[in-house]
Amino acid sequence: MNAFLNPASVLLVGVTRQTGVGAYNNLEVMRRYGYKGPIFVVHPSAKEILGHPCYGSVSHVPQVPELAVVSVGRDRVLPVVRDCLHKGIRNLVIISQGFADADDTGRALQEELVRLSRQGGARVLGPNTMGILNAFDGFSTAFIDIPRDPCPPPLTLVAQSGVLQVGIESFTGRLGKAIDIGNGCDIHFVDALQYCAQDPQTEIIVLHMEGMRNGRRFLDIAASISAHKPIIVLKTGRSQAGARAALSHTGSLVGEDAVFDAAFQKAGLLRVRSMVELRAVAKAFLHFRPMAGPNLAVLTATGACGIMSADACEDFGLQLAPFPEEAREGLENPKIPWHRLGNPVDLWPLGMVGGSFPHVLEKAATALVARQDTHATLAIFPRMSSPLHDNLRFEDVLRRVQEKNVSQKPLACWVYGDGAEEESRVLDRIPGVACFPSLDEAVMGLAATYRFAQWRQKMAIKASAPEPPKVSTAHGSTTPRTQGHEELGPAMGKNLEDRITGPNGVVLGDEALGWLARFGISTVPSTVVTNADGAVRWAKENGFPVVLKVVSPQWVHKSDAGGVMTDLGDAEAVRRAFEKLLERFRATTPQGHLDGIQVQKQISGWEMLLGLKRDPQFGPLVVVGQGGLYAEVFKDVQRALAPVSADEARLMISSLRLFPVLQGVRGRPPADLKALVNAVVRLSDLAWHHEEIQELDINPLFVSDKGCWAVDCRMVIE
Amino acid sequence: MNAFLNPASVLLVGVTRQTGVGAYNNLEVMRRYGYKGPIFVVHPSAKEILGHPCYGSVSHVPQVPELAVVSVGRDRVLPVVRDCLHKGIRNLVIISQGFADADDTGRALQEELVRLSRQGGARVLGPNTMGILNAFDGFSTAFIDIPRDPCPPPLTLVAQSGVLQVGIESFTGRLGKAIDIGNGCDIHFVDALQYCAQDPQTEIIVLHMEGMRNGRRFLDIAASISAHKPIIVLKTGRSQAGARAALSHTGSLVGEDAVFDAAFQKAGLLRVRSMVELRAVAKAFLHFRPMAGPNLAVLTATGACGIMSADACEDFGLQLAPFPEEAREGLENPKIPWHRLGNPVDLWPLGMVGGSFPHVLEKAATALVARQDTHATLAIFPRMSSPLHDNLRFEDVLRRVQEKNVSQKPLACWVYGDGAEEESRVLDRIPGVACFPSLDEAVMGLAATYRFAQWRQKMAIKASAPEPPKVSTAHGSTTPRTQGHEELGPAMGKNLEDRITGPNGVVLGDEALGWLARFGISTVPSTVVTNADGAVRWAKENGFPVVLKVVSPQWVHKSDAGGVMTDLGDAEAVRRAFEKLLERFRATTPQGHLDGIQVQKQISGWEMLLGLKRDPQFGPLVVVGQGGLYAEVFKDVQRALAPVSADEARLMISSLRLFPVLQGVRGRPPADLKALVNAVVRLSDLAWHHEEIQELDINPLFVSDKGCWAVDCRMVIE
Repeated sequence: MNAFLNPASVLLVGVTRQTGVGAYNNLEVMRRYGYKGPIFVVHPSAKEILGHPCYGSVSHVPQVPELAVVSVGRDRVLPVVRDCLHKGIRNLVIISQGFADADDTGRALQEELVRLSRQGGARVLGPNTMGILNAFDGFSTAFIDIPRDPCPPPLTLVAQSGVLQVGIESFTGRLGKAIDIGNGCDIHFVDALQYCAQDPQTEIIVLHMEGMRNGRRFLDIAASISAHKPIIVLKTGRSQAGARAALSHTGSLVGEDAVFDAAFQKAGLLRVRSMVELRAVAKAFLHFRPMAGPNLAVLTATGACGIMSADACEDFGLQLAPFPEEAREGLENPKIPWHRLGNPVDLWPLGMVGGSFPHVLEKAATALVARQDTHATLAIFPRMSSPLHDNLRFEDVLRRVQEKNVSQKPLACWVYGDGAEEESRVLDRIPGVACFPSLDEAVMGLAATYRFAQWRQKMAIKASAPEPPKVSTAHGSTTPRTQGHEELGPAMGKNLEDRITGPNGVVLGDEALGWLARFGISTVPSTVVTNADGAVRWAKENGFPVVLKVVSPQWVHKSDAGGVMTDLGDAEAVRRAFEKLLERFRATTPQGHLDGIQVQKQISGWEMLLGLKRDPQFGPLVVVGQGGLYAEVFKDVQRALAPVSADEARLMISSLRLFPVLQGVRGRPPADLKALVNAVVRLSDLAWHHEEIQELDINPLFVSDKGCWAVDCRMVIE
Repeated sequence: MNAFLNPASVLLVGVTRQTGVGAYNNLEVMRRYGYKGPIFVVHPSAKEILGHPCYGSVSHVPQVPELAVVSVGRDRVLPVVRDCLHKGIRNLVIISQGFADADDTGRALQEELVRLSRQGGARVLGPNTMGILNAFDGFSTAFIDIPRDPCPPPLTLVAQSGVLQVGIESFTGRLGKAIDIGNGCDIHFVDALQYCAQDPQTEIIVLHMEGMRNGRRFLDIAASISAHKPIIVLKTGRSQAGARAALSHTGSLVGEDAVFDAAFQKAGLLRVRSMVELRAVAKAFLHFRPMAGPNLAVLTATGACGIMSADACEDFGLQLAPFPEEAREGLENPKIPWHRLGNPVDLWPLGMVGGSFPHVLEKAATALVARQDTHATLAIFPRMSSPLHDNLRFEDVLRRVQEKNVSQKPLACWVYGDGAEEESRVLDRIPGVACFPSLDEAVMGLAATYRFAQWRQKMAIKASAPEPPKVSTAHGSTTPRTQGHEELGPAMGKNLEDRITGPNGVVLGDEALGWLARFGISTVPSTVVTNADGAVRWAKENGFPVVLKVVSPQWVHKSDAGGVMTDLGDAEAVRRAFEKLLERFRATTPQGHLDGIQVQKQISGWEMLLGLKRDPQFGPLVVVGQGGLYAEVFKDVQRALAPVSADEARLMISSLRLFPVLQGVRGRPPADLKALVNAVVRLSDLAWHHEEIQELDINPLFVSDKGCWAVDCRMVIE
């Protein structure tokens, strides 16, 4: 990627003759942006453009440029690429539109582009891209004249559109480097992240993502970075998410967007959902060291904003720091004995009576930043343009506070009033200080730094454990089956390499339950019998009550058809039910084939659902949650990408709304959570080893205080 | 309120001698803001301040000023108020802090202030207020020099803090008038809204609310305004909301914040939850006529922003308008046959190939604003400060579009790039155009205007119905019991004026169910018997299966104590259960008093919860939702302030997540929703007529296809 970000020399093909206003001339823009290396321009007829001599074709160029930037019409792209490869150019940026972003012809052209470049050993960025922005080295391939940051920040953007380069102010605020992968025919998020991982000028990574390829490789590299450099991701296209046409409960419970959520969570990415949030979070990382804990001190010129700050803390997962009692005396003013000090600290009365407001703010901020149980400070104050309020100036004050802020805790400001904009620009230059356009955005940004700090700490703990953590291994490999959860004991399975198959791609009932059992998931005891005596004998051996079910390919929805009878408490009830089911079967489907009648132990407990779904990008995803009638009403499910460790399974279960109920309510004993955790982990194993399983539902999975049992299972095989 | 907003003459008490920088001199600020009427200044020693002669006391002032503004220390406020009243002044603004905002002494002072002013026939604004801002007439009582809007917008702010006047840019963007009610000891939201209702300079109302008094009167006046003028409310203090210590399920299911939500919904207020949202929504109302429907056309310079716009539409309740097929030909460009037109309309390729981007934008916008099925347009485009992009100017373009926008549909813009700020300021001046700092905020603002239009239409339909709608009547009056739901038939009750009483303030079991029955809520058939024969006889008459329950003051939690036996299907089972319960009772509580054994018909159906809770401000609130074990896990409840009409009850029920299940699933017939609606309306009646009921739970309320029955009930009486 270095050849793309800072090439030694550049070839431009497709430069327009026109220059100046409205020309979108990328040669002109590249020079203005500050590129100092040699630029070679190919033009079919022009002798020179902007003083650059032009060459009639790529072959006439006297050197082999390190990078070619192509912006001809789509029909001329492939010939130009051939010329470039022939010339020996190994790095190509294809600005041109009209490829996979457009129609079938475009898609075919893009495929050919990929084939050609692979064959020629070249890498391609684009097509349909604005390309590269590198404010450090002054290199831009854009056709829009974007101002170059005079003091580039260590923030690198990887986007699927140029709009985040053109509209810097609206998205990340500032940019050090940017890579627009466009259609991503070759260079994709994985390559860009690999570059970011090793680049010392990149400390903060922002991704704008519309879609994903090589999801697992992306997660591997993202997870290896996210413990050191925050990765903020704006994933768009949420609305087209919706659940895809699904063959199972699990399918309908997992929309595409939820898969991205699970993926980002697995790799420790910080997801933002709007431009407002992106702007706030990027600014926080640009200005602050991450908050080491959740405690925020609020200094405010008005009580109303104290209340709003408390709301914002709750909204974004921070909390108000305890007010330091020993600071009370130094701040209190005997002239206003009625004034109450706490956090939020309402400073205005003190400023009005006891001296200047900025002075009081300084005193309080200095006292608070020194506290160990304060992890960041939010200061709220006015700045008016009126000459009457020239006393309300905060630059010197905050500089002095920061001198004493030895552990460099964030100092966020929200300045209001008609002089706020200018004051904010001044204050933003103080190291460790950032001003936000509202207090909500200040708290939003701070909270994101705290989430990053938590993740970083978690990863540090994992890294210090004997076995390094893995998000995944090469999918489909012979990974040890019980990674990270040996304490659960070995699974019972064998013949693990057998491929599961079923008629119409669906495996049901005993066969499906059999596979579960082989992977260590308890299933409800049952057998299939062909006469009533057999049913009674089995029930006596295994204990009443039991359930009888018709087993027939014609009776898939047996429950709706009256093919299930429950609560059979003694031999007589079993006999009667057996006859009744036979009768119903013969009456309804006289031509049907009856495999037999299933006798199943009747289990009581909480009805749960356990499932998996295979995402084309991210692979198998495990789902656990409420089952039964209400499963799709309350959608109380948690999702995680496989492989799921016991720790992750515990987190999933304890995040269910249902969790307090599982812990035992109104005299019901707590559910056997260990067994449930085991089932989740085992299902993850099954998913990992059987790529042919596209979807799987265990519904219901009964969980009681004695264990958990899969009662019914349905697999979709492909 | 006119005397406060635009007084003929003003008395100032508590003006500091100091003027200029850092003085916070409200005489100086008032003059700078443009007040032209006579100002009388009272000062104990100064001869003049800023050329104004000073009087030694209020009694020396030569006239009776219409308004007095008092900003002396809290200890001197009451003597000054006495002087003012004695002088004949009837309108007082008390700027001073340290009253109910502070300590017990302050609270006592405030009570005395209220008593004095009532006695003297005066109205008081404050204390602890910044007072009034009136940009139309140039009047401000603030001690901060706030710039006066040269062209005041028809937006009036009623706030509980001065920060929204000082930080206009951060909150509503612009202000025509503002009333800071401060501690609200006398003048409160109700008075301010009454002023807004009749004020022709007020077309948009913004409330900043921390707490509420006279909740019902507030709702009455708010509801009478909200059909004509949008009322936007920023209610803060959400985090302290949490559920209050509650004696019942209903209590714990309704936090204070949810009560405000229900109240705002009842009166058609537009709630915003952050400063970002307030800013966006206020701007939309300042610039736009409300969207008549949900359809948004999006014109964008980049496909990425089209995707983000679709996300924002889903987030805020709008949808993409259909693309007008007849406009296709006029916009398509044969040079780029691969370019696909739709909504969002990606215009950049057309601009690059077919002519200038602003021209293409104009063509598309003109075509779209003319469409009946487009209710607003969002245009997304760049503006760069570079001279190379001087062609990207949109003022003339949008002015021409607006000339053809005959039905004045909103035209929202999001401009990005380093020239966006300036361009936005220019475009904001075009009538019907507003620029937002992100596309999320644009859609947020537009969606709020659509919500207002929906409410306005709903109210217009109601107003055209024979009976005018009422949010409430004077609470506790003899309102007709069946307002708006006569179709349900009369309730069975009599002795409606009887007050319900119970031991320890709690009414349970049959007594509680009896009250429900009198108000037309079906209860499960049951009786209390003292011997097994009686139980069997009743069961035979009313049908098996039945439930038996111990009735004893010592067995309140009878279910936990084993005092309930269910599924009793025949006489023998009833007999056995009866003996068993007696045995248990005697064994566990030998000294206990047994009232008898309750025989109850066993009902099946969906377990629902129906309840009410009395809010100190807003009165009775009705709750309906899922009952049983999971009630508090999934909190699937809907709330509405009484009186609840049948229409409102239907809306509540259909808004439950549970609703699809109630409509019938997997062979279960649909629930009798008419009966459920009836029960909700009847409970609302009960709440309305029995102010002594503080909380009430019907849990479970069984709903089947045959009706609904209250099985257990618990009332808290005060």
